[in-house]
Amino acid sequence: MVRVLYPGSFDPLHNGHLEVIEAAADLFDAVVVAVMVNPQKDSALFPVAERIAMIEESVAHLSGVSVVSHTGLAVDAAQAAGVDAIVKGLRTVSDFDTEMTMAQTNFAVSGVPTIFLPSASSMAFLASRYIREIAREGRDVSALVPAPVVRRLKEQFGP
Amino acid sequence: MVRVLYPGSFDPLHNGHLEVIEAAADLFDAVVVAVMVNPQKDSALFPVAERIAMIEESVAHLSGVSVVSHTGLAVDAAQAAGVDAIVKGLRTVSDFDTEMTMAQTNFAVSGVPTIFLPSASSMAFLASRYIREIAREGRDVSALVPAPVVRRLKEQFGP
Amino acid sequence: MVRVLYPGSFDPLHNGHLEVIEAAADLFDAVVVAVMVNPQKDSALFPVAERIAMIEESVAHLSGVSVVSHTGLAVDAAQAAGVDAIVKGLRTVSDFDTEMTMAQTNFAVSGVPTIFLPSASSMAFLASRYIREIAREGRDVSALVPAPVVRRLKEQFGP
Amino acid sequence: MVRVLYPGSFDPLHNGHLEVIEAAADLFDAVVVAVMVNPQKDSALFPVAERIAMIEESVAHLSGVSVVSHTGLAVDAAQAAGVDAIVKGLRTVSDFDTEMTMAQTNFAVSGVPTIFLPSASSMAFLASRYIREIAREGRDVSALVPAPVVRRLKEQFGP
Amino acid sequence: MVRVLYPGSFDPLHNGHLEVIEAAADLFDAVVVAVMVNPQKDSALFPVAERIAMIEESVAHLSGVSVVSHTGLAVDAAQAAGVDAIVKGLRTVSDFDTEMTMAQTNFAVSGVPTIFLPSASSMAFLASRYIREIAREGRDVSALVPAPVVRRLKEQFGP
Amino acid sequence: MVRVLYPGSFDPLHNGHLEVIEAAADLFDAVVVAVMVNPQKDSALFPVAERIAMIEESVAHLSGVSVVSHTGLAVDAAQAAGVDAIVKGLRTVSDFDTEMTMAQTNFAVSGVPTIFLPSASSMAFLASRYIREIAREGRDVSALVPAPVVRRLKEQFGP
Repeated sequence: MVRVLYPGSFDPLHNGHLEVIEAAADLFDAVVVAVMVNPQKDSALFPVAERIAMIEESVAHLSGVSVVSHTGLAVDAAQAAGVDAIVKGLRTVSDFDTEMTMAQTNFAVSGVPTIFLPSASSMAFLASRYIREIAREGRDVSALVPAPVVRRLKEQFGP
Repeated sequence: MVRVLYPGSFDPLHNGHLEVIEAAADLFDAVVVAVMVNPQKDSALFPVAERIAMIEESVAHLSGVSVVSHTGLAVDAAQAAGVDAIVKGLRTVSDFDTEMTMAQTNFAVSGVPTIFLPSASSMAFLASRYIREIAREGRDVSALVPAPVVRRLKEQFGP
Repeated sequence: MVRVLYPGSFDPLHNGHLEVIEAAADLFDAVVVAVMVNPQKDSALFPVAERIAMIEESVAHLSGVSVVSHTGLAVDAAQAAGVDAIVKGLRTVSDFDTEMTMAQTNFAVSGVPTIFLPSASSMAFLASRYIREIAREGRDVSALVPAPVVRRLKEQFGP
Repeated sequence: MVRVLYPGSFDPLHNGHLEVIEAAADLFDAVVVAVMVNPQKDSALFPVAERIAMIEESVAHLSGVSVVSHTGLAVDAAQAAGVDAIVKGLRTVSDFDTEMTMAQTNFAVSGVPTIFLPSASSMAFLASRYIREIAREGRDVSALVPAPVVRRLKEQFGP
Repeated sequence: MVRVLYPGSFDPLHNGHLEVIEAAADLFDAVVVAVMVNPQKDSALFPVAERIAMIEESVAHLSGVSVVSHTGLAVDAAQAAGVDAIVKGLRTVSDFDTEMTMAQTNFAVSGVPTIFLPSASSMAFLASRYIREIAREGRDVSALVPAPVVRRLKEQFGP
Repeated sequence: MVRVLYPGSFDPLHNGHLEVIEAAADLFDAVVVAVMVNPQKDSALFPVAERIAMIEESVAHLSGVSVVSHTGLAVDAAQAAGVDAIVKGLRTVSDFDTEMTMAQTNFAVSGVPTIFLPSASSMAFLASRYIREIAREGRDVSALVPAPVVRRLKEQFGP
């Protein structure tokens, strides 16, 4: 039994995230998606409960996937969930730099290892930050995010 | 049951490789270490049989690890071994660039996914190329490679 | 007829920006410089009207260059201006990562392509952020920015 | 009239190259594809004449595109063809590093500027080197290269 | 006599910083550690006086090291201290990009050169930002920071 | 007294190398330039004696600089010359990756530290490899290399 935690802000979940979850669900016995809450940043587009709901709807076709929220460190979430490893997606070199540093820090303070899954090339450019900006201007992002996210973005920002 | 293939030249195996094997053995049910043979490059320091022997001696303390050799593509080795994924270590940005490109190419032509394990920081500078150069000059590399490799390097280059 | 848009904050314009405009004016039939306005960031050093004036004075020797301002996405500015492509300068690897991601996102949602012009080596280190910091301390930046910008920085921060 | 040169080995042309040619043909008045010949490297998979033929067949649907071969520097090819700029595709950070250095060197010795076109994300992992390796093992690369290249690879290496 | 300035926020000092100071003290005749104060950022964990005290306690075993604070530019601090060069540690590629840009900007406006010291591999993942986050959650960071910092972090955050 | 070794192939010395030597000569008491000889690579453009002569002529205006040749490892050259540190120039991210790895390897096996000096921006694109290619085609490289190198390149390649 290999169980992994997939932490992130998911504000909102996009197709690159979904692809990581699908790959992890395919490889591992259990995938806990953890919506990380940062009380010091209150500029989120979607509240945590809605982010969880969007993920749950988007992963309904997968087995072994659960969704939780966590305030604090990813390693604390990992230990609370009793997983064997943290899973992160890798897209760009900036990602790599940041994620290597965090993986080594996390391992040093907790012993929890990190596993990286490379983005499929066609998803490597997706970033929630740009998706929020584009959706705010009313552009169609249905090629970039799952249907449950498209629906909520349209409710907020229009067609 | 999650089974993975760890391909490489391993000419010779160093502590960074060993660390990847140990992490993979800890996480997954079976780890197949594949010594990749390139018939067009005959400048190897150690013959394949000796590279396999050094790895087998160095992983004797681990369970679920086997060693094979393969001529051709890593994805062919992966499919021959019936594994679920290829595992690679990540150290530097140059690694990242090369490995992302190969992972995406491999997935496109075979459907075999690649998983990356980050090097622990203290191993991130290890490269077989530099170890060969340093050992050739007779310097002590016992802090960089497992004991079975130290012994063979000393037999070749002294002192 | 090839027409391009060159978007940026230009707070203030520096010699690296000017070099991109000159290269674009040399290659393309029309260059629209777009001062991008971010209503959520009100920490700009110069108001938009003054940024436009500084650019207009600095490009007075070039033909085919116009200056506009735009609130929203660069792709909206590009479509409003009816250009064929967005032009961006490339200096560092961090630039490259960010700009590739934005170029691919912009193309996915609008079909507007992005063209990159490499900074001449001697301009590659210029960044408005550092120029603001240095000018605030009263240091001479006349080697880094065009004369119309030097004059305004001196008016604000002294010799 | 903006005319550009697109230099490369094209051994063989792949879909990422073709995408750069299509984008350049869309933006510019003329695109000269230059197959660069390196007499010191005689390990090419396809002879120059065949590389030219494969490109010509693959760009038959585009107007304003011609194909030449050149022995020597890309800037000499550019000046011989009387173009305004060299065009290069950008995929990875390693590309970026190498291409920035070459663009700045080329500009310093010849005054010929270089323009970069970002790979669409779904092509960013393509490299002729890996395609040669994969085709040599008899795997299907028809998703990675144009049909005229698929046919010739099959003739050489089988289905 | 070679004298250098080592500027930083040091909020708090960690073992990677200490290693840079030790290497600089070993090579150069005098090392001035400059705690850089940014009046616009008032979110510091430790006040400047306490950051200075922690550094002074942590470098008590070294000769030729002094600690100052400075509000403004690092090059102003360097000229105020009469040093020959600024020293910075290098860990990751993001560091490299930022530091190269700053070094070239600083040299252009002041003539003060910058020297880089590479982090020993085992320290390359340390960042004050992550250490603050981890310590805030009450985890043990005694392997990551000097004893005088451990003590103060425990006073603030327990346990 | 701080003494440093600056190792390289210098085939040929270019203005970026010369700039590193000048900066090192300004900062340190002695600079030993070491022409590294690789007996396995016999494709050098200039023989070692001529590379040394070109460097000696080019640094005649500096005090404290000597030139040696060395076959083997840079750390052996450093210990033979009795220096305190190895000095390397840093230009690009690829440089950074390679040089960090070598610096950490060298420190691990010998205790000799490495110091990096950033290239001035206007020299960051210079690479002996491209200079050889350009000079071979008879182009003028007098803006890129010192006069003693220009003279010898002209003797070999004209015009």
